[in-house]
Amino acid sequence: MKPTFTILGTGALGGFYGSQLLRSGATVRFIAHSDVEFIRKHGLRVDSPLGNVQHQSVAVYAASDEIPPSDVVCIALKTTQNHLLPKLLAPLVHDGTVLLNLQNGLTLENELATQFPQAVVIAGLCFLCANKLGFGHIAHLDYGLVSFAPFDERGVAWIPRLMEAFAAASIPVEAQSELTTARWRKLLWNIPFNGLSVLLNRNTDGLMADADARALAEQLMTEVVAGAAACGVHFADDFPAQLLETTARMKPYAPSMRLDYLAQRELEIEYLYRRPLREVMQHGMRLPAVEAITRLLTIADRHNRSA
Amino acid sequence: MKPTFTILGTGALGGFYGSQLLRSGATVRFIAHSDVEFIRKHGLRVDSPLGNVQHQSVAVYAASDEIPPSDVVCIALKTTQNHLLPKLLAPLVHDGTVLLNLQNGLTLENELATQFPQAVVIAGLCFLCANKLGFGHIAHLDYGLVSFAPFDERGVAWIPRLMEAFAAASIPVEAQSELTTARWRKLLWNIPFNGLSVLLNRNTDGLMADADARALAEQLMTEVVAGAAACGVHFADDFPAQLLETTARMKPYAPSMRLDYLAQRELEIEYLYRRPLREVMQHGMRLPAVEAITRLLTIADRHNRSA
Repeated sequence: MKPTFTILGTGALGGFYGSQLLRSGATVRFIAHSDVEFIRKHGLRVDSPLGNVQHQSVAVYAASDEIPPSDVVCIALKTTQNHLLPKLLAPLVHDGTVLLNLQNGLTLENELATQFPQAVVIAGLCFLCANKLGFGHIAHLDYGLVSFAPFDERGVAWIPRLMEAFAAASIPVEAQSELTTARWRKLLWNIPFNGLSVLLNRNTDGLMADADARALAEQLMTEVVAGAAACGVHFADDFPAQLLETTARMKPYAPSMRLDYLAQRELEIEYLYRRPLREVMQHGMRLPAVEAITRLLTIADRHNRSA
Repeated sequence: MKPTFTILGTGALGGFYGSQLLRSGATVRFIAHSDVEFIRKHGLRVDSPLGNVQHQSVAVYAASDEIPPSDVVCIALKTTQNHLLPKLLAPLVHDGTVLLNLQNGLTLENELATQFPQAVVIAGLCFLCANKLGFGHIAHLDYGLVSFAPFDERGVAWIPRLMEAFAAASIPVEAQSELTTARWRKLLWNIPFNGLSVLLNRNTDGLMADADARALAEQLMTEVVAGAAACGVHFADDFPAQLLETTARMKPYAPSMRLDYLAQRELEIEYLYRRPLREVMQHGMRLPAVEAITRLLTIADRHNRSA
C-alpha cells in the first residue's frame, strides 16, 4: 500500500519533490495555479543533478477541479499564500488525511491542526535549494533532505511510511521526534542566513567570507538560541558555532528568501520572523537584532516588489 | 579682541563655517589638503540660502606650511581622518589655544584633552546640512546651528566669546553646560538617522513617511536612551517621541553619513557607532539593534568604496 500524494503548489519545492515521487512510481497529483494549462499541455520539467526529467503526462489540477482523494497532501505553497490554505485544503482533507507541511517557519502546524482536526499533521522540514524558472519548469540546484517530525501522536506511525516513500524517490530523509525543537533548529539557520542573504545580496559563501557578515549571523543566531530557550527549546552552547562552521564548509547556497527576492516575489517574513518573534515575546523576551533585521527586510521587500 | 580662527579641514563643514566667519570680518586661516592649490588660485565658493559668496583671496595653507598661530583651531576633518590629528594639530596648539571640535561622535574631546593638555578643549556640535561639490566649492543646503559645550572648566569663559563670534557670522548658536549630555543627545538622533539614511537610501522625510523605518528609528533611539542612561546621562521618557515628531516636521534632511555614502567617502562609523557601543559596554550593557546596524553599515561602507 504505497501512499498516494497530492502536491499543493507547483513551485520549486512542490515541483521538485512531486517530480521525484512521480519518478519513483508513486501516484502524484499536482495542484497548480498560474501554470495549470501549461503543465497539462507541455508537462513538467525538472533539471536536477539527480538527472533531468520531463514528465509528459502529469495529473495536474486547478484548485477548483474535482480532485481524487490522496493519502498525503503535501503543502508546498509559499507561506505568503497561507491565507488561502483553509479554502484550498478543505476539499482535500478527509478523515485521516496526512497533511505534510513542507513550509518554513513557526506555528504552521498548530494552525493546520486547529483548522483540520480530522487530519494527521506532520512537518517535513526541507533543506532544498531549487528555483522555478518558468511555467512547468523547475531547476533543482542542490540539497534536498526532508526531515520529518510529527505534530502529535497520530503522526508517529506515518513517519516511517513517508520516509520509505521519499527515500524510494531518491530524497534524503531523516526523522526528528520533537517538532518544536526541529522548527527552532531550522530557524536558527534560517533567521540569520535568509535575511542576510537578502539584505547583503549574497549567498552563504559570500556571507561567511565576510567577517562582519559572519559576526552579524552569529549575533542573530545567538539571539535565536536565547529565544528558543525562552520557548523551552534548548541547544548546546556550541551549536551556533558548529552551525556556522558547517555553513562555511558547505557548497555555496542561495537561501529561498534570496531566490524570492531576486524574482521580486513577496518574502516569507511573517512565518520566518514575525511569528517566532511573537512566540518569544509571549514568553517574555525580545530579540532586538532580529527585530531590527525584520524591519529592514519588510522595507526591502516592499521596495523590491514596487520597483 | 575678536578671536582669530584656523579651520582644519576645508570640506563642507569647515568651508561653510570658515566662510561665514570670514564674511563677518574675522581673521580665518584655512588648512586644506587636496584643494590647497585650487583655493589659492581660485578662492573659495560657498552657495548658501544665506547668500552665495565667492572669497577671492583666502589664507589657505597646506598642513606642512608655516601657519601663524590662531586663538581658536576648529577641527573640521571627518573623524575617519582622526589618526592624523596628533600630527596635524601639534604645530597649531600653543598654551591656551582653543581646540573647538566640530566633529560628530563620542570620546573625541577626551582624546584631544589627553593629547593636548595645554589646549582649551570645547565641543561645537554642528547641526548642518552641507556638501562639498568640488575643489573649493561648498553647497550649504540647510540648517547650521552650533551648540557649544566645554570639556572642562577652562572652556567655560571662552564659550560666550565663541558664541558672539559665530553669531556675528550669522550662525545660530546655543550653549550646553554638560558635554557628555550634549554628545549623547546628538547621538540619539545621529545613530538612527545617519545609519538608516544609508541602509535605506533615503532622507529624513523618506524615513519618517515609512512606518517600518520610523519604528526602526524609534527602536534604535530607545536603545541609545538606555545606553546613555547606563553611562549616567538621563533623558526624559518622552524625549525620543518628541525627537521623532520634530524630525517628522522638519524640512527633508540628508544626514552627513548619507552624503558621505553617496560620494563614496568612508563613513564615520567608528566615532558615531563603535565608540558609543564601547562606552556602553564598559558600563555593562549591550545595544543589540545598534550593533546589528553597525555591522550592516560596516559592510555597506566597504562595499560602497570598493564599487
